[in-house]
Amino acid sequence: MSQPIKSTSPPGDTRTERLAKWASSLQYKDIPEDVVQKTKDFFLDWLGCTIAGRHHPAVSAIAQFARQMGPSNGKSELVDGSLKFTTSPAFASLVNGASSHVVEQDDLHNRSIMHPATVIYPAALAVAQEVGATGEEFITACVVGYEVGCRVGEYLGKSHYERFHSTATGGVIGVAAAAAHLLKLNAAATLSAIGTAGTQAAGLWQFLLDATHSKQVHTGKACFDGIFAAYSARDGLLGPRDILEGPRAMGIALVPGETFPEAIDQNLGSDWAILSSSFKWHASCRHTHPSVDALLSLMEKNNVAFDDIESVVARTYQAALNVLGLSGAGETVHQSKFSMGFVLAVAAKKGQAMITDFTEEDLVDASLREFQKRVTMELDEEIESRFPKQWQGIVIVTCKSGEKFTESAEFAKGDPELPLTKEEIEKKTKALATYGGFTDVAHVNQLIERAWNLERETNLKGFIF
Amino acid sequence: MSQPIKSTSPPGDTRTERLAKWASSLQYKDIPEDVVQKTKDFFLDWLGCTIAGRHHPAVSAIAQFARQMGPSNGKSELVDGSLKFTTSPAFASLVNGASSHVVEQDDLHNRSIMHPATVIYPAALAVAQEVGATGEEFITACVVGYEVGCRVGEYLGKSHYERFHSTATGGVIGVAAAAAHLLKLNAAATLSAIGTAGTQAAGLWQFLLDATHSKQVHTGKACFDGIFAAYSARDGLLGPRDILEGPRAMGIALVPGETFPEAIDQNLGSDWAILSSSFKWHASCRHTHPSVDALLSLMEKNNVAFDDIESVVARTYQAALNVLGLSGAGETVHQSKFSMGFVLAVAAKKGQAMITDFTEEDLVDASLREFQKRVTMELDEEIESRFPKQWQGIVIVTCKSGEKFTESAEFAKGDPELPLTKEEIEKKTKALATYGGFTDVAHVNQLIERAWNLERETNLKGFIF
Repeated sequence: MSQPIKSTSPPGDTRTERLAKWASSLQYKDIPEDVVQKTKDFFLDWLGCTIAGRHHPAVSAIAQFARQMGPSNGKSELVDGSLKFTTSPAFASLVNGASSHVVEQDDLHNRSIMHPATVIYPAALAVAQEVGATGEEFITACVVGYEVGCRVGEYLGKSHYERFHSTATGGVIGVAAAAAHLLKLNAAATLSAIGTAGTQAAGLWQFLLDATHSKQVHTGKACFDGIFAAYSARDGLLGPRDILEGPRAMGIALVPGETFPEAIDQNLGSDWAILSSSFKWHASCRHTHPSVDALLSLMEKNNVAFDDIESVVARTYQAALNVLGLSGAGETVHQSKFSMGFVLAVAAKKGQAMITDFTEEDLVDASLREFQKRVTMELDEEIESRFPKQWQGIVIVTCKSGEKFTESAEFAKGDPELPLTKEEIEKKTKALATYGGFTDVAHVNQLIERAWNLERETNLKGFIF
Repeated sequence: MSQPIKSTSPPGDTRTERLAKWASSLQYKDIPEDVVQKTKDFFLDWLGCTIAGRHHPAVSAIAQFARQMGPSNGKSELVDGSLKFTTSPAFASLVNGASSHVVEQDDLHNRSIMHPATVIYPAALAVAQEVGATGEEFITACVVGYEVGCRVGEYLGKSHYERFHSTATGGVIGVAAAAAHLLKLNAAATLSAIGTAGTQAAGLWQFLLDATHSKQVHTGKACFDGIFAAYSARDGLLGPRDILEGPRAMGIALVPGETFPEAIDQNLGSDWAILSSSFKWHASCRHTHPSVDALLSLMEKNNVAFDDIESVVARTYQAALNVLGLSGAGETVHQSKFSMGFVLAVAAKKGQAMITDFTEEDLVDASLREFQKRVTMELDEEIESRFPKQWQGIVIVTCKSGEKFTESAEFAKGDPELPLTKEEIEKKTKALATYGGFTDVAHVNQLIERAWNLERETNLKGFIF
């Protein structure tokens, strides 16, 4: 393999080159207002997720690595202020990126099956802090990162996702593009950054089988590796020019099935990836969300209380039955979020299913466990026929009085069709901070206020809990 | 993919676990003398390669990244003393690992199609310097690194190598095992290190198509990522327990064809990977080596001089014809090493084909270009039938006097069957240092002397040119 082979693609003519050109030339003034707003929404949402995950043992180990291998007084900050050191962008993003995916409350881009926030924001924030970028420059870089990362994830497709953690493999390229933008790299250097990122793309699902810690490795390292790609490209390291579609590239090596090349560059600048990313509102498994939404709506509309309910039938799609069937009765807090019965019980009793609503105490709450037993799931062929384009849920509630109510949720709350309000994002952020053991409400309010005015920031320092 | 799935392998029963147990328990006293000697041989060979590659633009960019992202006064050293900073183990190995694969004179382990030295030595040296390991501890860790890395490469096999740069994907796991040994991790933590390394495994061949710089990224990052895996395992980060053979592991995701599971753990402690690794003696393409050896032997035996030769026929195997046919007449120094005619001309004229024997001046040497034209290659069916188990070459020389001589080389010089002598390794090291622009011969002699007595080192500081 030491012999160079001639390229078959004419220069300047690949989809990846068009994507790199677009990414390097995007300016803040070109970004529509709703895209800017969504970027701020997801930034705040990400910030809360990052503080919420800080006590995970993988995050502690990765923070220790950063402390031992990196500088102790860099320009980039850790969101967890209790760590009490600053470092270089690569290490700050390694730690923040690992932390922000722990509680699995970060956003989801459906079409690419990626969680873009957990890689794009930590990397862009760390680089922005180092180069002294403004809020506008930071927002622009994040929009670039979402766009490039999600488009790569969509190109790699479902068969890639079966084997690889797309948040990492698409994410590392989004990170490289976002960092390249903050470093003001031209199109050629951005293409190098994308190429060097892609040749580092990694992340296997094997850790799911024994509940080990690779998920944090994947998001943290996607940040580190993407930043490496951008900085080294700035300093003259050439990356492969066609890392997505080339004959020895990602599409061949990492995709056992079909790729979707048009996703790479179609509708650039008009179809914005960040607008089709979803918030996770409830803290439970995503497959329970439509049923939770339908149940809460039903209870409000019909003035039904927790104690009024005799039984619940949740009509759903097959994938929900498959996944939610695996966790038994929900013996641990984590498993309980994968039990439709327990999740609906929590939602019905508390009126919400936030991260602070699933605790050890709740696991032994007899009223929740009783309710849980009276919930059944049923396959609904009509709902199934529309999944995964639409994630619908129907609940049928029979009351102790004999009354019967039915309600449908066409989308999950947090989907692009049903986005969270500012107040809801704030509420979620506060719950995440509380979960992370941070109780200074005034400080949280200050950070929220800064996030809502992100475009006016003159530098990005101090997003620290 | 947020739902944990139960493991199917009973604990303590996988090949990977057996490999981790063996790796964590190996002691210096268990290592046969010839294995120790070979470890010292390849260490010196690696040291020369590292200084030779230091001026490559990718190495400069990576060194700049290390300078910007890492500390400036760590305990780990850069082999290129002109860089004038020390750093942490992860960054020192990133730079040294990138540098040592540039001139492609580092060793080759045939069965795994890997270059183990370029990843194992930089990582083990950097960690050894940080933990203050002795020469014996360093040698033991390197033996572990070779063993684990090469066995993983052999497990992944030829179909993996078609898509991935095995030196990186197997290498990162060898690095993790070597670093884990120096950190004195137990079997469980070593298994975590191996798992975390494997889920980061990456490195695509796409860069070959446009001669970009990913080769240096792959070797340097294999060092960095493997060190990350070992240190984070020490600090409690759990890696997947069956990253090689598990249902969502490397064997499924990164191997389109057959895997070779028995390679993982058969004959541990009796069949040593480092004993089956080969030196690269000549600086030309490996496929020219048997013919160079045969020609030099023929000229010596029969007292034939460069000017005596009218024509040369090199009889070889098909793969050599395929690869050596791609570079035309050899317009660049790099291409000239892939021209059988030019390489044999250089060898015949200079009596050797060291790295310093291929220069811009040689490209325009009329006597070399004349000779080159009088060399032809022919397919030899018998040689072909034994390739790649045996890399044989036959040359038939017709002299201007009319005399005709034939000589066969059964193996390439540097193969396990024909290892380099101490003097030859020293000569190669000096040529590599010269090529790297380092001219202090006394200093090179000192480093050589230290390498020959590596087991007596009390610390590994100062292997700096």
